[in-house]
Amino acid sequence: MKLVSFLIDGEVKAGMVQDELVVDIHAVSGGSLPKDMISIINLGDEGLKRMKELGAFSEGEEGVYPLRDVTLKAPIPRPVSIRDFYAFEEHVKTARKRRGLDVVPEWYDIPVFYFTNHLAVKGPGDPIAKPAGCEWLDYELEIACVIGKEGRNISPGSAQDFIYGYMIMNDWSARDIQKHEMKVGLGPAKGKDFATSFGPYLVTKDEMDTYRNGERLDLPMTAKVNGKHLSEGNYQDIHYTFEDMIERASKDVTLYPGEVIGSGTVGSGCILELGPEKHPWLKPGDVVELEIKGLGVLRNTIVERRKGEDHVLSSIGEHTS
Amino acid sequence: MKLVSFLIDGEVKAGMVQDELVVDIHAVSGGSLPKDMISIINLGDEGLKRMKELGAFSEGEEGVYPLRDVTLKAPIPRPVSIRDFYAFEEHVKTARKRRGLDVVPEWYDIPVFYFTNHLAVKGPGDPIAKPAGCEWLDYELEIACVIGKEGRNISPGSAQDFIYGYMIMNDWSARDIQKHEMKVGLGPAKGKDFATSFGPYLVTKDEMDTYRNGERLDLPMTAKVNGKHLSEGNYQDIHYTFEDMIERASKDVTLYPGEVIGSGTVGSGCILELGPEKHPWLKPGDVVELEIKGLGVLRNTIVERRKGEDHVLSSIGEHTS
Repeated sequence: MKLVSFLIDGEVKAGMVQDELVVDIHAVSGGSLPKDMISIINLGDEGLKRMKELGAFSEGEEGVYPLRDVTLKAPIPRPVSIRDFYAFEEHVKTARKRRGLDVVPEWYDIPVFYFTNHLAVKGPGDPIAKPAGCEWLDYELEIACVIGKEGRNISPGSAQDFIYGYMIMNDWSARDIQKHEMKVGLGPAKGKDFATSFGPYLVTKDEMDTYRNGERLDLPMTAKVNGKHLSEGNYQDIHYTFEDMIERASKDVTLYPGEVIGSGTVGSGCILELGPEKHPWLKPGDVVELEIKGLGVLRNTIVERRKGEDHVLSSIGEHTS
Repeated sequence: MKLVSFLIDGEVKAGMVQDELVVDIHAVSGGSLPKDMISIINLGDEGLKRMKELGAFSEGEEGVYPLRDVTLKAPIPRPVSIRDFYAFEEHVKTARKRRGLDVVPEWYDIPVFYFTNHLAVKGPGDPIAKPAGCEWLDYELEIACVIGKEGRNISPGSAQDFIYGYMIMNDWSARDIQKHEMKVGLGPAKGKDFATSFGPYLVTKDEMDTYRNGERLDLPMTAKVNGKHLSEGNYQDIHYTFEDMIERASKDVTLYPGEVIGSGTVGSGCILELGPEKHPWLKPGDVVELEIKGLGVLRNTIVERRKGEDHVLSSIGEHTS
């Protein structure tokens, strides 16, 4: 099942995609299923079963909209948290080599991660504003899994039970800001703390299992900028699987439904790795498209940050930034 | 005003402390004020005004409990996020000196932070379980501020308007786990991702302003382990104030009510800085007490992690861990 959050009549609601239609889950269930994605995820397997039992819908039925007529938001507009790992060996090797460094032996001991801002989430189509002082704006091609069940000290062998589904993730990175702050020995923080995009779909685990090749999911991953093919990888080449990452993340701490775990960048999956000779840093007007088999295409356009946005007192809606 | 979250009849509710009493804000307002702290913070200045107008209460009135009879939880049991900064120069100098390093010049350019797990929050009195594989367990004496109003690109000059109040923060640290993972160049993550404690009170900004000494709040900060005085500092010695941290945190991203900003450790405020010759790493049975003028005493006891907790399928409540 492909799940989305979509804007309809000024409200963000959870929907199921059926061919070229979006079905408003709350509306077609007669109000018995919740309106928002986090509440649906909290219903776990029971919620999945009830959504499947709703059956197939046709255009013109109440609560059913042509996909082209709705605005998709991030599948989970406000995740419970985001942990981003660093689990593809090729990315780590190449990114460190560019700085004249080898992969440290500790990378092979444990999967490591950092927390990023779960309140700065963007959806498919949302403009990405270049932060102030950033000249080295980059994309990162990642796959994310969503936790579907509360758990703690989860073994890799049982970790599959805790996965609800998968999404494409773009971990936007201000490389100059990141480089500066990380000299101090913490983070990254502000190098990433402006935008992370997800979508277009949250695809449930059962549907993604059709791409299983033995122990692993065979999911080609690509990135294009302005239609030019730049990055190419596959989830099956990951060194630490989501099962390993869930084991690490849940050590002596409780994971909750709606927490998101990012894979880290696939090999070749960002400009930092490719090098400026392959492609310059992103600039306003650039269109970045991430595609992962079974998960769709996540497309965002870079825009200038609004002039005069510094030191304002009142808030500015995320979607207009 | 001193605000608390407290457990009464199996429910966690927001309360005001008046002398030795806790007043259930929802109950005494006839249900017109919310039950939980995040909703109260979201009411901003209007909520503060309405709480003040409720007036003074006496023991025996409905919704009023002796402080000694209730269990206090963290003032905000689930903050919206936690950014932890690194803003006291003495801590940075001493901690780096212990590793044979100087303070990097970038530390003086910008206040840096990392995000930590806002879902692993503990309150006053909650036991702190030593994580598996941790032999170097440490406390960190910090002060935190809570964001009370939505804002973006906030100037240091207007940052005071966005502060709701202050709390004591203990950023529990598994130094061996932290050291291992940070070799890879990210984090800290699992070195901190098991417990952060806050409390006992969230004290509103107006009440803390009585400690103002010119531009800064004069707030002595101390830590004791098993009654032995180990750490002593003062918030007024901080290099980057909360105004500076809010400016940094809000750059090109929206801050929301209920987000928490930690100061980082005050100079001398952890065993890592003091050195093992001054005090050994924490062990089960140790009682750690952090005290900050005007904010009370935050007391927690270290306990053994439950045996057999590894690789369980079902969840275990945080309070029993």
